[in-house]
Amino acid sequence: MNVLARASKSATHVEMANSLRVLAMDAVEKANSGHPGMPMGMADVATVLFTRFLKFDPADPAWHDRDRFVLSAGHGSMLLYALLHLLGYPGVTRAELERFRQIDSKTPGHPEYGHTAGVETTTGPLGQGLATAVGMALAEKLLAARYGAEIVDHHTYVISGDGCLMEGISHEAIALAGHLKLSKLILLWDDNGITIDGKVSLADSVDQLARFEAAGWRAFRIDGHDPDAIAAAIESARSSDRPVMIACKTVIGYGAPTKAGTHSVHGAALGKEEIAGARAGFAWTHDPFEIPANIVTAWTEAAEHAAREHSAWKTRYGKLDAKIRADYDADLSGAIRPAVFAAVEAFKQAASEGGAPQATRISSQKLLDRLSPAQPNLIGGSADLTGSNNTKAADMKSVTPEDFTGRYIHYGIREFGMAAAMNGIALHGGFIPYGGTFLVFADYSRPAIRLAALMGVRVIHVLTHDSIGLGEDGPTHQPVEHLASLRAIPNLLVFRPADAVETAEAWELALKAEKTPSVIALSRQNLPIVRREHSQENLSEKGAYVLREPEGGRDVTLFGTGSEVSLAVEAAERLAGEGVKAAVVSVPCFELFAAAPSDYRRSVLGQAPRIGIEAAIRQGWDIVLGPEDGFIGMSSFGASAPAGDLFKKFGITVEAIIAQARALAASQRA
Amino acid sequence: MNVLARASKSATHVEMANSLRVLAMDAVEKANSGHPGMPMGMADVATVLFTRFLKFDPADPAWHDRDRFVLSAGHGSMLLYALLHLLGYPGVTRAELERFRQIDSKTPGHPEYGHTAGVETTTGPLGQGLATAVGMALAEKLLAARYGAEIVDHHTYVISGDGCLMEGISHEAIALAGHLKLSKLILLWDDNGITIDGKVSLADSVDQLARFEAAGWRAFRIDGHDPDAIAAAIESARSSDRPVMIACKTVIGYGAPTKAGTHSVHGAALGKEEIAGARAGFAWTHDPFEIPANIVTAWTEAAEHAAREHSAWKTRYGKLDAKIRADYDADLSGAIRPAVFAAVEAFKQAASEGGAPQATRISSQKLLDRLSPAQPNLIGGSADLTGSNNTKAADMKSVTPEDFTGRYIHYGIREFGMAAAMNGIALHGGFIPYGGTFLVFADYSRPAIRLAALMGVRVIHVLTHDSIGLGEDGPTHQPVEHLASLRAIPNLLVFRPADAVETAEAWELALKAEKTPSVIALSRQNLPIVRREHSQENLSEKGAYVLREPEGGRDVTLFGTGSEVSLAVEAAERLAGEGVKAAVVSVPCFELFAAAPSDYRRSVLGQAPRIGIEAAIRQGWDIVLGPEDGFIGMSSFGASAPAGDLFKKFGITVEAIIAQARALAASQRA
Repeated sequence: MNVLARASKSATHVEMANSLRVLAMDAVEKANSGHPGMPMGMADVATVLFTRFLKFDPADPAWHDRDRFVLSAGHGSMLLYALLHLLGYPGVTRAELERFRQIDSKTPGHPEYGHTAGVETTTGPLGQGLATAVGMALAEKLLAARYGAEIVDHHTYVISGDGCLMEGISHEAIALAGHLKLSKLILLWDDNGITIDGKVSLADSVDQLARFEAAGWRAFRIDGHDPDAIAAAIESARSSDRPVMIACKTVIGYGAPTKAGTHSVHGAALGKEEIAGARAGFAWTHDPFEIPANIVTAWTEAAEHAAREHSAWKTRYGKLDAKIRADYDADLSGAIRPAVFAAVEAFKQAASEGGAPQATRISSQKLLDRLSPAQPNLIGGSADLTGSNNTKAADMKSVTPEDFTGRYIHYGIREFGMAAAMNGIALHGGFIPYGGTFLVFADYSRPAIRLAALMGVRVIHVLTHDSIGLGEDGPTHQPVEHLASLRAIPNLLVFRPADAVETAEAWELALKAEKTPSVIALSRQNLPIVRREHSQENLSEKGAYVLREPEGGRDVTLFGTGSEVSLAVEAAERLAGEGVKAAVVSVPCFELFAAAPSDYRRSVLGQAPRIGIEAAIRQGWDIVLGPEDGFIGMSSFGASAPAGDLFKKFGITVEAIIAQARALAASQRA
Repeated sequence: MNVLARASKSATHVEMANSLRVLAMDAVEKANSGHPGMPMGMADVATVLFTRFLKFDPADPAWHDRDRFVLSAGHGSMLLYALLHLLGYPGVTRAELERFRQIDSKTPGHPEYGHTAGVETTTGPLGQGLATAVGMALAEKLLAARYGAEIVDHHTYVISGDGCLMEGISHEAIALAGHLKLSKLILLWDDNGITIDGKVSLADSVDQLARFEAAGWRAFRIDGHDPDAIAAAIESARSSDRPVMIACKTVIGYGAPTKAGTHSVHGAALGKEEIAGARAGFAWTHDPFEIPANIVTAWTEAAEHAAREHSAWKTRYGKLDAKIRADYDADLSGAIRPAVFAAVEAFKQAASEGGAPQATRISSQKLLDRLSPAQPNLIGGSADLTGSNNTKAADMKSVTPEDFTGRYIHYGIREFGMAAAMNGIALHGGFIPYGGTFLVFADYSRPAIRLAALMGVRVIHVLTHDSIGLGEDGPTHQPVEHLASLRAIPNLLVFRPADAVETAEAWELALKAEKTPSVIALSRQNLPIVRREHSQENLSEKGAYVLREPEGGRDVTLFGTGSEVSLAVEAAERLAGEGVKAAVVSVPCFELFAAAPSDYRRSVLGQAPRIGIEAAIRQGWDIVLGPEDGFIGMSSFGASAPAGDLFKKFGITVEAIIAQARALAASQRA
């Protein structure tokens, strides 16, 4: 295509770009809330990108070989909504633009994945859009390596602002993209020199072009208001052998007569006068939200142009070898293959029958060795702790810049970048990503875990070394509050399996949770098998279950998770010797227990006094415990020492459980 | 000094460096746990730095004008412990080296601030040491600008590994340091090309020198095993007008005969054979932990050399103008000036007597306008949300690369970097830092907040827009689980004041908490004054207090925090109209309430049924609520809409409180 040609015969580039500007001004003004500056500044870039390059089909927003567009500067949401509206995406009507930022509208303050057609990922928390896009671009390479460029061949475009580039995650993202030579990733940086506090120069002096080049990108600067320069830049970027950053020199709030180029246009309605001035400057005589027919036609033509390739793609897809197409469909469906369930079943049986003590991170590794061939679209990885997280399945080959047929990603020492890239891989589709680090470093990746939960995407965080049981590395590396703080995130499943059997059940549930991310917290240290009797049923599915029921009723019930369940079992056995009848309940997942039927919950909880046991803080345990019940766990940071010494130091021992159980049972009898 | 001269007449450089290597090998071997590779690789660099450049005084580790040394690669702790031991730091005895990583030793797995003399900051979570050091170097500039180079003139040296430079926070840190031209910051990068997973090239291709130069640093590479090259490099770095990064090309595990230069030497004991081979290579014939007298002497001489300047400094300090010295002492003492308490008192009185509704972020701003002149070592800042966080006091001038007399830091869009720099400012001493962002973005800075809590340093996080009350920006910007997840961190005070009065009380308590970081969560929206009666006493000090006590006993008690307290008050008043006696308790700080005397807690809690009200999740509320009590708050992510619509949508209303209170009170009577 001749990209330097005019975008449309029906309307000029300037008219089309101005249509985005006025819609952004009008919507923010009506809401009296929002960010007009960025949409007005980047309208030229967006117009060129969407009219001349981006491939998509508003009639089928989920068409899998579409180009991905990520508005990393999510506060500029009106730019995206204006585009989606004018291009005819379903549901993004004029009425919805008029309800910008109002309750239950399709046009919330920041773009929300799953809520508005055409929104590829939820953005707003700065830097994450870019890092998520890296995951999308990586997924494209992985999928293309499997199914060929005939049906997988698309670009990932990102618009980011200065904020995204100042955030630390941008470093992790661009370093990973540069290392992997993700040549189909194109970043359009809104280089307007303005942030909320004022000029960028108030807080930043980074030479961004040099920085990106140092990370293995191609980078250059253009006039972000010159459509031909924009088109030439994108055209050139599309043939790069590296990811490309195009610094688009723009004026924030372009067209606002007195506020353009200042931070006062960033995040507030412009006001009537300023809008009138801008309209006059654009020679725009139409009412708010009113777009003249010739411009509507031009955008409609652009949508048709963008969708052109869809039918050709369908033809190519139809000609695929039946077996390949079935595999492609299966991968994209996100379905879990039957072989996975068989593998879990076999693993559980072997573990419960023969199992010697084993760290659950090792159990996870051994299970993954079986799951990986069963579910060929699993993509593993670790933030440089592969041997400690035990995340690399036996048949997994590492992904390299030269070879994307592998299935294991060395994410580097980039927990946050990994988590965001995993979100991008999941959003792109075709794969189920999991990645490992230490549980304590969930704090580093937390903002991306939250975003996964908010979007409802299936990513699996394998977080090992899940308590003071990690021992000598000390309090900086020992999670204490992390189980609680992760359980606090809505729509996140936090599993802490007690042994190899529960580890397999956790993996099965995490894989089945198509709309929910999961954390699987695993021990560094060996744990005995507590599930000695094989059960076909996934007992972890209801979040908690009775592991040991004493005959003749309960004097006390011990609730444990993970490494502490075996302590509870041993305590119960010894209590039996002194005539105290203790039940043991394993609680591998609080969220699933909270969602279980109330009569089931009541039966598990029982009537006897309760003790919770977890080498972590009590917060959150009120799902099980009342104010009179007991708890054995942590109330401070940990310490550096061998694990055994630490469990003693912090009083998380069989003896402590017995003493507390004895006292509670006695008070009960009294 | 002639830095190229030999370090000592008593022993050669090689002998001294090898003494560090063998101690690291021996300690890790004895613990059978730890990281020998980095200490062995960086022993030459550390020897040159500590014997020829660093100024410090083991007899007075807290001497304020010492150079700061930060081991950002904290896993290499044995390098630091070996140095501290050989230099004669108090408590770091041979016996403690032999108890490396054992319970209650002075030599935990990672260096812990406040635990071992000579450890400037706790490190281990990668990247944070570097970012904290940026805060220290910034504090040095700020203090020197106030008191002159005569008594404030020291460098900050950092040793980091590849991990620190891959972490996103390194970007925020080096961009901030480069922008501010922190010329006394010198980073020694252990450029050994190895990470846990294998070679760095497995996951990273960044040209680090180019990257640092892009961020405004001077950067160059040297042979990290050539003492003269190391000395020349540091000498040159000390006269730079910018921060300097020296890439020290080293061999990880230098001297280990078969494992050197590989990842197998990174994080595990070397084993007897390998150690024997290394000793042979070093021609080291001494027993484990045994250092020959000539080398001990050489290190002792180095310590004397390093302390040389201390007495000259004391002389200069003694000659200071008395008023200046008193100010300097006051700033360094960390004491809160009496004028602060007077300002708080006056502010409270004015607010309770005359106060119109006000957002607590605005109240905080107005209070800061008074606190800032009262406490001249307060250092404010924001991660580019100055106008939203309301963090810039009226008399605060911005710090610029040219002028460090200001007291307000534009941290840029770098929440994590800001939080870590705040830690560094606090650790350096002389200042009390506070910094602002939105509460939801505490997730970005969380790892540094945790580290502040672990270290026990006074930093104050002003986190505004503290609920769905922020409105239109939507769920990406609305904290829901953040109060709970912050309350989960040990040794952190989380304040959520209900009005202007409590805002002042929260600030007072945060300033007084010398060993504890604080979060002050503030509303975007206006809140009525609920404390209409002035009290000299700080009622927030016990964490919760009765705001409204009905006559004739309670039918129900309503517990609220922040913006929901006024809802509780209104509900109680309306309930009184229908004959239901409702008490209202304000709970500005859970941690302080948990620590209050139990009889006080009982009196506040009362016997009546309870309802907790907070526009956030219930997790953590069991500090107040039992399983039968009520809760009005959030159980999902928020949404984008005007705040009023959201409180209705999520059922956080006076009507909902009344309905629940009515039902609970009735069930009580039944």
